[in-house]
Amino acid sequence: MAPFFGRDIISLRDMTVDDLWKIVETAGRVKKGDYGNFLESKSFATLFFEPSTRTRLSFESSILQKGGRVFGFANPKGSSQSKGETFADTVRTVEGYCNVLIIRHPVEGAARLASKVVSIPVVNAGDGANQHPTQTFLDLFTMHEQMERLEGLSIGMMGDLKYGRTVHSLAHAMAMFRGRMTFISPPSLQMPEEIKKELLTAGIEFSEVSEPEQAAGDELDVLYVTRIQRERFGDPQEYEVVAHSYRVIPETVGMLGGQVRIMHPLPRVDEIDERVDGMENAIYFQQAHNAIPTRQALLGLVTGALE
Amino acid sequence: MAPFFGRDIISLRDMTVDDLWKIVETAGRVKKGDYGNFLESKSFATLFFEPSTRTRLSFESSILQKGGRVFGFANPKGSSQSKGETFADTVRTVEGYCNVLIIRHPVEGAARLASKVVSIPVVNAGDGANQHPTQTFLDLFTMHEQMERLEGLSIGMMGDLKYGRTVHSLAHAMAMFRGRMTFISPPSLQMPEEIKKELLTAGIEFSEVSEPEQAAGDELDVLYVTRIQRERFGDPQEYEVVAHSYRVIPETVGMLGGQVRIMHPLPRVDEIDERVDGMENAIYFQQAHNAIPTRQALLGLVTGALE
Amino acid sequence: MAPFFGRDIISLRDMTVDDLWKIVETAGRVKKGDYGNFLESKSFATLFFEPSTRTRLSFESSILQKGGRVFGFANPKGSSQSKGETFADTVRTVEGYCNVLIIRHPVEGAARLASKVVSIPVVNAGDGANQHPTQTFLDLFTMHEQMERLEGLSIGMMGDLKYGRTVHSLAHAMAMFRGRMTFISPPSLQMPEEIKKELLTAGIEFSEVSEPEQAAGDELDVLYVTRIQRERFGDPQEYEVVAHSYRVIPETVGMLGGQVRIMHPLPRVDEIDERVDGMENAIYFQQAHNAIPTRQALLGLVTGALE
Repeated sequence: MAPFFGRDIISLRDMTVDDLWKIVETAGRVKKGDYGNFLESKSFATLFFEPSTRTRLSFESSILQKGGRVFGFANPKGSSQSKGETFADTVRTVEGYCNVLIIRHPVEGAARLASKVVSIPVVNAGDGANQHPTQTFLDLFTMHEQMERLEGLSIGMMGDLKYGRTVHSLAHAMAMFRGRMTFISPPSLQMPEEIKKELLTAGIEFSEVSEPEQAAGDELDVLYVTRIQRERFGDPQEYEVVAHSYRVIPETVGMLGGQVRIMHPLPRVDEIDERVDGMENAIYFQQAHNAIPTRQALLGLVTGALE
Repeated sequence: MAPFFGRDIISLRDMTVDDLWKIVETAGRVKKGDYGNFLESKSFATLFFEPSTRTRLSFESSILQKGGRVFGFANPKGSSQSKGETFADTVRTVEGYCNVLIIRHPVEGAARLASKVVSIPVVNAGDGANQHPTQTFLDLFTMHEQMERLEGLSIGMMGDLKYGRTVHSLAHAMAMFRGRMTFISPPSLQMPEEIKKELLTAGIEFSEVSEPEQAAGDELDVLYVTRIQRERFGDPQEYEVVAHSYRVIPETVGMLGGQVRIMHPLPRVDEIDERVDGMENAIYFQQAHNAIPTRQALLGLVTGALE
Repeated sequence: MAPFFGRDIISLRDMTVDDLWKIVETAGRVKKGDYGNFLESKSFATLFFEPSTRTRLSFESSILQKGGRVFGFANPKGSSQSKGETFADTVRTVEGYCNVLIIRHPVEGAARLASKVVSIPVVNAGDGANQHPTQTFLDLFTMHEQMERLEGLSIGMMGDLKYGRTVHSLAHAMAMFRGRMTFISPPSLQMPEEIKKELLTAGIEFSEVSEPEQAAGDELDVLYVTRIQRERFGDPQEYEVVAHSYRVIPETVGMLGGQVRIMHPLPRVDEIDERVDGMENAIYFQQAHNAIPTRQALLGLVTGALE
């Protein structure tokens, strides 16, 4: 395990199993309240070149609750890039104002580029369709909180598996913990070939189906649901058919066995029926709230405030 | 009096006279400086689905000045609702990030809905044309600061009484303190029938006139002025006539007796002449500044930091 | 030297040489870490009626890092002026929420106007093409940090000298320290006549050239580069010619002698080649980062937290 102090958090691919355990364990201690205002003397810039309320608010709240200072902008118009400045110049300037840069950007690789031009830690809060590592950390933390283990879990991933950054990162992480995966998606939105090849090479067990019913016998520990965007379909009617058959309703939970936990990175639109919200299986709001201890733990580690 | 700790602040209609006194008294002690950083360990989210600088800045400043932490968004585009998320899901998510939700929303009933889906306190910072209770609290605090009483005051309300959320809440509050009211408005912008019926039922004395001059003999303690919006009139010339006759000038103060205090929820456009600003009767900026101790008191009470 | 406590910071023209020394010296002590959280009990409003990320973020970070509280808005749509409120009413209202107003406005004279209607200190963070005094403070601080003196420096200013607010203020300040100036610009973008007249009256030595090569013998301590905006030229081809000949490349540094420091208020577009970034002569990012101690020093002085 590389030490976390001073480290950039750009991609799941930079991390070892030990790194992920370190984050999950530290988040657990933070959530229990083991530490005080450990971010007290630290300043953080949230540079959101693409709006994302949930991610931005949870980072800002995480920082503030532990005594840290945070400032930034919430959309690209708020930046000097509208005056023609390069992204590299922007981050090199803001580097002098804070201890950590938290960057959200519509372009893949932006966070990596930032990490190469500044000397303070950069945390990737989502770069295009590429990576969103802190989402995966909170997903893992939530699974561990629920199942008390991460190894060998049986995970169904459902919805848009082709463009969904979240499920790509999650598949990578689950492989590290030798999980078993069931990919449930319409044929046009299947998990990309290169990810499946990686899983095959690593000897990870997975199956691919096109209807939730086909996962009924898989004894899923978790069904991880993602949104299917209407824009992915040329034909609106085709979208309606797909959206309907991938919608989680109370019966879906029964069909998958009473044990399955329903997770979702949120925001959801229609893909989980509100009647599911009240069921014990629905843990997506708890998952969303776990953003706080997980991000606090991560920021504590990269600033050296926690070890 | 219901205790304030953990309570939602949605509407004047949920409050007793004792509740209002509690807020006014607590705000008085806060303004005197009786308490330290009483919001120190508390986090607040300001969710403004409709822009409102004055309200947002005064909430944020109130919180920060007492050591609290605050984060949020200033307009609807900053929210995940642009991705199709329901309002209920947004507030359920942010609930996990803070101790109190402060919500401004263009739709009537939004704050009430939020209070039903989350378990932390919700403070209504204005929902459409409906309620804006914290404005009324600071109006009452300002009147009490000036007149050293709240019972039996004589209040003129002038301007747009039909659509003005502020004067609706104020009329309700004044009735609770057995005030006497004079409603001054063009016929098309009179106080709604249901409010007048309530006053009649409660045996509250009021009169209704269409020219400020007709209130000359009423010995008003306060003239509460609100803006008349041009858009309310189909005919621009009709608007000009009305705007002119409802404009407060130094002579208006004299005509109403030297004692009258001029109040206004701000922002004003033309409805109070700037020559009035320097008169002792003009207390609208003092009123605006009282947002700070009043909101601090309220947030201290609902978080349990004050009793 | 007028004491700084309670003072408005609107224009370089209000300041003496002693004032400028005071700021530079205090910023030096702040940067060395001589003081703790000296802004701890102070609240600041950042009212940006015109967007400016760099300036806003550096003010906010400066305040937060020293324990101060800051709130505000980042663009004009966030203000009540969209409802027709006057600028004077807006600042009179926000005056009651904080200890200092920091104002950026597209209209010349806005900060001065604000300072006349409120009784708390106003800091001008840029008003139209007029003044941006805190930029000049950090420019001076950076020069002093590099050259260990401010008197009698030899400064080249290059680019758009006609519309560039930064170079106007800097020329004024350099005159106060009896500097020698070389103005390098296309004929259509020369330093305004009134500034040149002031320099002549004060007996300050300066020359005016149209090509960087003509400054080769001037032994410049600093070349201060500013952006030339494409919009200043009717003919795009004329712009290309000018932009090319005013672009700083590694050879420019050699041609001006190895000693010259390259400064720039940022953001830059093309006017400094990225190959210059790695040279010791390039101090523009260090200059940008000096915004923090300089603004902290200034805010400490006007609030009375520092003496």
